[in-house]
Amino acid sequence: MHQYRTHTCSALRANDAGKTVRLSGWIHSKRDHGGLLFIDLRDHYGMTQIVIPEEGELLKQAERLRVESVITVTGEVVVRENGQRNPQLPTGDIELRAKDITVQSAAEVLPFQVAGQENYPEDLRLKYRYLDLRRDKMQRNLLLRSRVIASMRRRMQEQGFVEFQTPILTASSPEGARDFLVPARLHPGKFYALPQAPQQFKQLAMVAGLERYFQIAPCFRDEASRADRSPGEFYQLDFEMSFATQEDVFGVLEPVLAGLFEEFTPEGWKISDGAFPRIPFADAMRDYGSDKPDLRNPLILKDVTKVFDGSSFGLFAKIAASGGKIKAIPAPNAGDKPRTFFDKLNNWAREQGAGGLGYVIFEAEGGKGPIAKNLEAERLQELRDICGLKAGDAVFFAAGTDKDYAVSKFAGTVRTKIATELDLIEKNAFRFCWVVDFPMYEHNEETGRIDFSHNPFSMPQGGLDALNNHDPLTIKAYQYDIVCNGVELSSGAIRNHRPDIMLRAFEIAGYGPEVVEERFGGMLNAFRYGAPPHGGAAPGVDRIVMLLADEPNIREVILFPLNQGGEDLMMEAPAPIEPARLKELSLKLDLPKPKVTAAPQN
Amino acid sequence: MHQYRTHTCSALRANDAGKTVRLSGWIHSKRDHGGLLFIDLRDHYGMTQIVIPEEGELLKQAERLRVESVITVTGEVVVRENGQRNPQLPTGDIELRAKDITVQSAAEVLPFQVAGQENYPEDLRLKYRYLDLRRDKMQRNLLLRSRVIASMRRRMQEQGFVEFQTPILTASSPEGARDFLVPARLHPGKFYALPQAPQQFKQLAMVAGLERYFQIAPCFRDEASRADRSPGEFYQLDFEMSFATQEDVFGVLEPVLAGLFEEFTPEGWKISDGAFPRIPFADAMRDYGSDKPDLRNPLILKDVTKVFDGSSFGLFAKIAASGGKIKAIPAPNAGDKPRTFFDKLNNWAREQGAGGLGYVIFEAEGGKGPIAKNLEAERLQELRDICGLKAGDAVFFAAGTDKDYAVSKFAGTVRTKIATELDLIEKNAFRFCWVVDFPMYEHNEETGRIDFSHNPFSMPQGGLDALNNHDPLTIKAYQYDIVCNGVELSSGAIRNHRPDIMLRAFEIAGYGPEVVEERFGGMLNAFRYGAPPHGGAAPGVDRIVMLLADEPNIREVILFPLNQGGEDLMMEAPAPIEPARLKELSLKLDLPKPKVTAAPQN
Repeated sequence: MHQYRTHTCSALRANDAGKTVRLSGWIHSKRDHGGLLFIDLRDHYGMTQIVIPEEGELLKQAERLRVESVITVTGEVVVRENGQRNPQLPTGDIELRAKDITVQSAAEVLPFQVAGQENYPEDLRLKYRYLDLRRDKMQRNLLLRSRVIASMRRRMQEQGFVEFQTPILTASSPEGARDFLVPARLHPGKFYALPQAPQQFKQLAMVAGLERYFQIAPCFRDEASRADRSPGEFYQLDFEMSFATQEDVFGVLEPVLAGLFEEFTPEGWKISDGAFPRIPFADAMRDYGSDKPDLRNPLILKDVTKVFDGSSFGLFAKIAASGGKIKAIPAPNAGDKPRTFFDKLNNWAREQGAGGLGYVIFEAEGGKGPIAKNLEAERLQELRDICGLKAGDAVFFAAGTDKDYAVSKFAGTVRTKIATELDLIEKNAFRFCWVVDFPMYEHNEETGRIDFSHNPFSMPQGGLDALNNHDPLTIKAYQYDIVCNGVELSSGAIRNHRPDIMLRAFEIAGYGPEVVEERFGGMLNAFRYGAPPHGGAAPGVDRIVMLLADEPNIREVILFPLNQGGEDLMMEAPAPIEPARLKELSLKLDLPKPKVTAAPQN
Repeated sequence: MHQYRTHTCSALRANDAGKTVRLSGWIHSKRDHGGLLFIDLRDHYGMTQIVIPEEGELLKQAERLRVESVITVTGEVVVRENGQRNPQLPTGDIELRAKDITVQSAAEVLPFQVAGQENYPEDLRLKYRYLDLRRDKMQRNLLLRSRVIASMRRRMQEQGFVEFQTPILTASSPEGARDFLVPARLHPGKFYALPQAPQQFKQLAMVAGLERYFQIAPCFRDEASRADRSPGEFYQLDFEMSFATQEDVFGVLEPVLAGLFEEFTPEGWKISDGAFPRIPFADAMRDYGSDKPDLRNPLILKDVTKVFDGSSFGLFAKIAASGGKIKAIPAPNAGDKPRTFFDKLNNWAREQGAGGLGYVIFEAEGGKGPIAKNLEAERLQELRDICGLKAGDAVFFAAGTDKDYAVSKFAGTVRTKIATELDLIEKNAFRFCWVVDFPMYEHNEETGRIDFSHNPFSMPQGGLDALNNHDPLTIKAYQYDIVCNGVELSSGAIRNHRPDIMLRAFEIAGYGPEVVEERFGGMLNAFRYGAPPHGGAAPGVDRIVMLLADEPNIREVILFPLNQGGEDLMMEAPAPIEPARLKELSLKLDLPKPKVTAAPQN
């Protein structure tokens, strides 16, 4: 008989009755019942009920053991009496009559309970992560994560992508966020950087002719923690392909995401299938007030500026006259909501920094509400027509200057709020879309100059000809985002692989060739020895798992995460180091001076 | 028609003749032949011959292009004439008659040639790694690496192991080597460390009840470069399992390694199958003079001290009398080698620091050589019997003190040398073995104290009872190495999961509980809340790929390696950083003072 187990704690069934078996696991719970002691013995796979005979040494031994102690139990499998069966448990038809118990590891008093559903402060859970991870939800989350990643790998490999590991000790990258730095002991005064993403390496892999690269890639950013981004490190499904158009990249990622979400959501969930909608950036701002539109939300924004231009509703007329914009947010069937519904929304809008949230309720004829009262009947009708609304529907308004999409974005926030309040968001669905045609450049009002809108390394649509002959503000880039339920999973782009086009693109943004060569010379040089057209994307693994696990906190889907302060409370990192270690790194501490808050003392 | 390609450069066959197709790739080579211009067009998948018509714009355009430029060619597939076919190439029956060429990226003059077999200095290759990687051998090596890792993952998953990512920004670990450190910007004066291995995390995963963990894990050591270890980072197949005995761990890894090597070696190679030999450490030193025995080598060392004890061969008799050891290294059929063979080996031994390499050649009766002349006949016969040798065989000797296995290890070196010289090493074979039963402790002659031999965290055989009641120097650990063809792929162990046993084990090595709690308190505490017995190993991925690719240099199997000086010559890392970056890390440089080599000048 094996030293620790003949079966796992999820394996035994009624037809094992009479067998002598051995199980090992944690004491999940103990209870006295009619003189007998019952133990729920738990391992990674499941739970089995152990019964300790009424008297004798075994009972005394078992009574002394605290929950979460690890034991090995040898005994006989017995079918439970009819009333005692537990249909919730795969092993619920049997129990194990203990004949021998070996203590593998006795537990001390726990800082918090593993069994049960109680919530504990996050810092406590992180300090004792090895206890927290024993809980059922955490085991499920972490297994889901692992299965999701394995499925991603399989789906990429099936499309001919090959996984390569790119360096983790590397050079500082021009991604924009802050790098973590690593002092190079053998090169005093010099530092490695941890990669914010393997962006340059994957492009160099394309230049090297590897053609279809992917990696479940660890990435590092020294930036403040957010709910959906762990401080420190995170993982992305990083991929890149050569001789590919934007549509080729979409064609690769769509079946991976659709298949993945199909695989890991319950039966009956609705997942975008086939080609995901492609929504130009300008249309996304116009229709959804967001470049991350949630397509589960059926509401479409309408531009109703012209309805109010010259109208007798003075506030909006003035905004329209001064070049501002009025966006309408339809609210179907909201007409019969009580006055408090509209008042609450108005208050919410004020909390968001808006002046309020005007509305119109449509009736069989005309409308009601403060705005309707002041608006000409034909304009009211025009409003109804544009928004496609009927009697009993309402419409809300966002109005003001649309500089930097201010009104559009607020209308987008209202769209989400209204749909949530009216319970219009499609349930049990994952709706994907691509946002495409991002502008290459934007006008910087402060400096009066032309800046890159997003990634300066994306290929401009129209190439060199567009850069040379078109107004820069009309040029779009082969740059795209993949969005799911309003969450951006990734940006991506067809890259600019042509030094001549790159130098010209930077010139438009005010950077001379000497600056570009100085900062990005490595990539530029590589492109001078034969570079294929290429592009890719890098969906965030953690975010995908969060969506699938329905967890709003990223730390619930990471094995051993840092806390929001960037600390590992279990391992006590970061930590001070020995002066000798600093010395060999050719470094000295230069700590901020403590603030003097009181008069000097003697 | 797709913008870049209808087929890859390995796809076209004779039955595609007549089709109009489009290919993209690199100009591998160009040659003029009978007025026509031929281009070998290369992509990741293969090569296709392009023919440019005799005259016109297309020819002029093609003539201007340098090799390694990236082009897209549209044209008609034509079957080559009989004498022109190339059976070496899957596409060798056809060629593409170009009708249109689009230049995607024009190459400048290359720093070295991609086509051809020429060798270039490693630093040049690393600086232009994206060119070096285009070469056939590098593409094959990197693809092999990727396939090996994918196969490892599949084989571990098939055995119920689940991959989890452990942290990369973490705390300094007690592994022994030097950590890379990462200053924590938000915690002035504190540092993260990059993991030397996920050892503590995988053990904590076991405490968390995850039971069968694995990871293709990046590991980091700030130590000097070696041929078989890249400076900086490397990967291991890290795994750990709960409720497992040493034999369970072996049972998991054996089919993974055997299957992997079977999968990636040519037909006809011999791979250890089933259970690998388990060789106790003491036996390995005795029989092979190494704890990394190469089982392809058939030679077995023999202890022949007693043969020479009191013999008339004075040198060895003296060694035997003073407690030294004489080890015999058989050399079958070496008797007819010329005198120069023995002289060369003698010189080689002197280069290794030995006094020389004595030998005996056995004849039908007795033996010859300087030692045989001075040895009694019956002792000569005894020597022959112990070594199992016959007339025509020879035997070599290593003699001296065996403190720290000095003689045994030298005999092991001789064993390798002799087998190599006599061409006795089995060819086309991968022979695995486990070396087991490493001693827990050893006697430190300098301090007179008892030290840990290897890993202080391994479980001592016999547990607490052995520690309390046996001579520490006789206690063995559940610690093991997996060895292939004389290369150590991994250590591993059944871990000590019991705080009481760990404190006692450290006490024997002279460390009080306060020291252990201070240094390893994190793990000890985790073990106090119910820890399962567990163990594992972590075979080196890079080494396995090196064996399979038959590459002695680890940088040949890594995509973008650091050079031996720990520098990324392509990305120029490590590099100086801005003073402002140092400031925000609360650090100052403390550079070594330049050495003054001349008199002060004014």
